[in-house]
Amino acid sequence: MKINGAPTRTLWPAADGSGDVEIFDQTLLPHRVEVVRLKTLDHAARAIKDMQVRGAPLIGATAAYGLALVTRGDHTKADLEEAGRTLKATRPTAVNLAWAVDRMLAKVLHAPPTDRREIAYAEAAAICDEDVETCRAIGRHGLALIEAAREKKGGGRVNVLTHCNAGWLACVDWGTAIAPIYAAQQAGIDVHVWVDETRPRNQGASLTAFELGQQGVAHTIIADNTGGHLMQHGQVDLCIVGTDRTTRTGDVANKIGTYLKALAAQDNGVPFYVALPGSTIDWTLTDGIAQIPIEQRDPTELTRITGRLPDGSLAAVDIAAPGSPAANYGFDVTPARLVTGLITERGVCAASEAGLVGLYPERGR
Amino acid sequence: MKINGAPTRTLWPAADGSGDVEIFDQTLLPHRVEVVRLKTLDHAARAIKDMQVRGAPLIGATAAYGLALVTRGDHTKADLEEAGRTLKATRPTAVNLAWAVDRMLAKVLHAPPTDRREIAYAEAAAICDEDVETCRAIGRHGLALIEAAREKKGGGRVNVLTHCNAGWLACVDWGTAIAPIYAAQQAGIDVHVWVDETRPRNQGASLTAFELGQQGVAHTIIADNTGGHLMQHGQVDLCIVGTDRTTRTGDVANKIGTYLKALAAQDNGVPFYVALPGSTIDWTLTDGIAQIPIEQRDPTELTRITGRLPDGSLAAVDIAAPGSPAANYGFDVTPARLVTGLITERGVCAASEAGLVGLYPERGR
Repeated sequence: MKINGAPTRTLWPAADGSGDVEIFDQTLLPHRVEVVRLKTLDHAARAIKDMQVRGAPLIGATAAYGLALVTRGDHTKADLEEAGRTLKATRPTAVNLAWAVDRMLAKVLHAPPTDRREIAYAEAAAICDEDVETCRAIGRHGLALIEAAREKKGGGRVNVLTHCNAGWLACVDWGTAIAPIYAAQQAGIDVHVWVDETRPRNQGASLTAFELGQQGVAHTIIADNTGGHLMQHGQVDLCIVGTDRTTRTGDVANKIGTYLKALAAQDNGVPFYVALPGSTIDWTLTDGIAQIPIEQRDPTELTRITGRLPDGSLAAVDIAAPGSPAANYGFDVTPARLVTGLITERGVCAASEAGLVGLYPERGR
Repeated sequence: MKINGAPTRTLWPAADGSGDVEIFDQTLLPHRVEVVRLKTLDHAARAIKDMQVRGAPLIGATAAYGLALVTRGDHTKADLEEAGRTLKATRPTAVNLAWAVDRMLAKVLHAPPTDRREIAYAEAAAICDEDVETCRAIGRHGLALIEAAREKKGGGRVNVLTHCNAGWLACVDWGTAIAPIYAAQQAGIDVHVWVDETRPRNQGASLTAFELGQQGVAHTIIADNTGGHLMQHGQVDLCIVGTDRTTRTGDVANKIGTYLKALAAQDNGVPFYVALPGSTIDWTLTDGIAQIPIEQRDPTELTRITGRLPDGSLAAVDIAAPGSPAANYGFDVTPARLVTGLITERGVCAASEAGLVGLYPERGR
């Protein structure tokens, strides 16, 4: 994808060949575009912890390069293992993080010390390239659904509603829920995206709107309250959202508020799709509402908002009644019965055990 | 209700007997409590237009006193009629506003000039007192529903979810949707309110949380996205919301996002009630989604947020991606099939023509 017209991934090895890695500081988006250079393990760990990078695939890729950074200097096996523990501890809930660290360690720990740097950088690059291909495949399969929606309405603009940011900025390139939209744009389809603001952290109004704007995709930011009204009036042709965790039976945990949009979609006959890489399916779970624990986060994320003052500087303001308590639930679970289909890198399937095992037969019992 | 421990209405004749009227400047809530004195028609009109007072009943009461202020000095019939037009033009959509102005003019226009002041102040006071009694009756009827919810769960704390501000601050006293909660508090019921933030204007996090806090009612502010998750996990015993306009058939137009909560309530077997004074029923409408036009407001209400800086001063910050368009729909329509019952000053009825005509037989065809 592009920023300011230049094609770029969300992280890349520095062009000077030093082995340093560069990222965009996503904590400053959409207000400022700043590239940050990661030179050490500590830089990489802090970038993840402070959410300069976020989104499970991008966190995994950053952790992989974090280990590669260690292999540039003098180091022991114990140093690498310690680095792995440090990286895993940055964001305890992201499943891709541990997966990427373990994959890197399996490759480099037993290699001759002089070969480790080359092996580590190659493996980190492979993790990134594989993520790009997974997202590209999700985009290709999702494109067929957008084309179908356009045919169903007899041509013209296709309106897609999305929630939170499951886009390019959460991955290495393309994104998950947004990949089909970029694929549609490249296929010349007139596509417009209703972007849920996504309170309390506003990932829609900030990140999704930013990345769609940078690619020139038509979009409109709306309050999270708005989607039902739009669907009642025929203004949404399909919904596509991401997911943090999918059960074997097709229940999906995603950003808080996703369930409400799925209910509105069902009530108005609007298709509701969830895009995911197969790696986020938790094959051990069968009941999302009962089994997936929902993170409660700092209530200040709800009551204090950062934005731009008229002079362009950033400031945080408190918006709620002083002294009133607040609660901040991070995710909710949308039951499979409300999901029209799952868009994976292997194709589209029903949100059910039969559907998922059909695409991932190696997981059949 | 109370502010800083002192019982007060939302507007009142000044204690000095001057005939001036005092209000709280609601544009400063919840950040500051400031009383504003209305001395002239222009003061009253500006208070309505600038939303220092808001909420249909309070707007009507303020307009009534706005006309009374004119009768204090030299004036002609033409002056009164002109004042009525000025007041009606402040907020074109509020039905109570025109109703209150017309009621006042009917009383004072044909009275002897020397009697007008006394008649006008008495009529404005009557409008306020009637609003208080209407809200008190809504509270009494709604209390029975809260008591029923407590019995159903075998006692203990009753959790009510509400959206936007249909409370004391929107009326002269008590409120509509919040009146049953105050009635429950006075009846010694342990009641806790989930307060939807209510984007984009945040009336929940600011006004509803503020007024509940001032009365000492337990409450928690949540993002609008949260209610579905809470209902899935048994954390909501009933929902009570207000409405701006109710059709003859029981469809209700209310703040954008109400429909999504009604869907979640139905999906989880949670009772969903709508509180309203009979004056907000539009007996000419039979299909809310098709017939009620939905106001689109300035998108800046969504993308720019006012709050308190660390030094206590107020500032507005821009939160969205620069250049991204936004849309701001003010209301949505919840179809009658999702509404468990309507709470009116005459009692509780089904959200249907039969239910409403049962309570308002004078409206039967």
